Amino acid sequence: MAEQCIFCKIVRGEIPNTTLYEDESVLSFLDIAPAAKGHAIVIPKKHYQTLLDLPHEELKGVMEAVQKIAAATMVALPGVQGFNVVQSNNEAAGQVIPHVHFHIIPRQKEDRLNIAWEPGKSEAEELKKYAELVKGKMK
Amino acid sequence: MAEQCIFCKIVRGEIPNTTLYEDESVLSFLDIAPAAKGHAIVIPKKHYQTLLDLPHEELKGVMEAVQKIAAATMVALPGVQGFNVVQSNNEAAGQVIPHVHFHIIPRQKEDRLNIAWEPGKSEAEELKKYAELVKGKMK
Repeated sequence: MAEQCIFCKIVRGEIPNTTLYEDESVLSFLDIAPAAKGHAIVIPKKHYQTLLDLPHEELKGVMEAVQKIAAATMVALPGVQGFNVVQSNNEAAGQVIPHVHFHIIPRQKEDRLNIAWEPGKSEAEELKKYAELVKGKMK
Repeated sequence: MAEQCIFCKIVRGEIPNTTLYEDESVLSFLDIAPAAKGHAIVIPKKHYQTLLDLPHEELKGVMEAVQKIAAATMVALPGVQGFNVVQSNNEAAGQVIPHVHFHIIPRQKEDRLNIAWEPGKSEAEELKKYAELVKGKMK
């Protein structure tokens, strides 16, 4: 647990939340600044900063919860036709709260969300170079 | 395997790819229309349309590969300071290829990517109503 972490405070019950799901190691609640109705956050109860810090066992629990909550959201909320799972690591990626978390964002065809990017260009040689670099550091 | 699915064709070797990682059930390769240098895609080799269709065992394998590739990307590629994991389900969410896939997008503070959304507003009563609806459909 991290003393000042907002998500740890939610886990400890010091800040209220609207719980969707809870088990021994995972908590899910509705985002209070939602991108869309039903926008959920899923976290491990223990404090880990990024996805890279999350042990396999807890990653499994978190992802199974993501599936469970997304499945329920798809049938429970009127008009929902799809969803994005978004997870951001470090400030450069837009991570605001330094406690690893997954967003589940319900989508509708006519919504104005734009969780996307302009398709870039690539050269085969360049891709090959990047792949070699990454493979060289893989554990 | 789905006959016409582009990712299944990549798995079968009918379309070339720049492989980052491969095991019995998972394949990862560089996106040819990258949002950023080193943008990777991670898929189960078997064809499943969305995250909701992916069995637990394969979800585990895919997510452990996401961790492994992201960790290597963070140390291998110059300037990378963070990463987003993005996963889209159904057309309404921007899913183009109907074979479940995770994007790993390397980020830098000065990049121009905007994988984010405007924080919305919520009322406690409304959140409670949505939570009841979702919990009512959870299996």
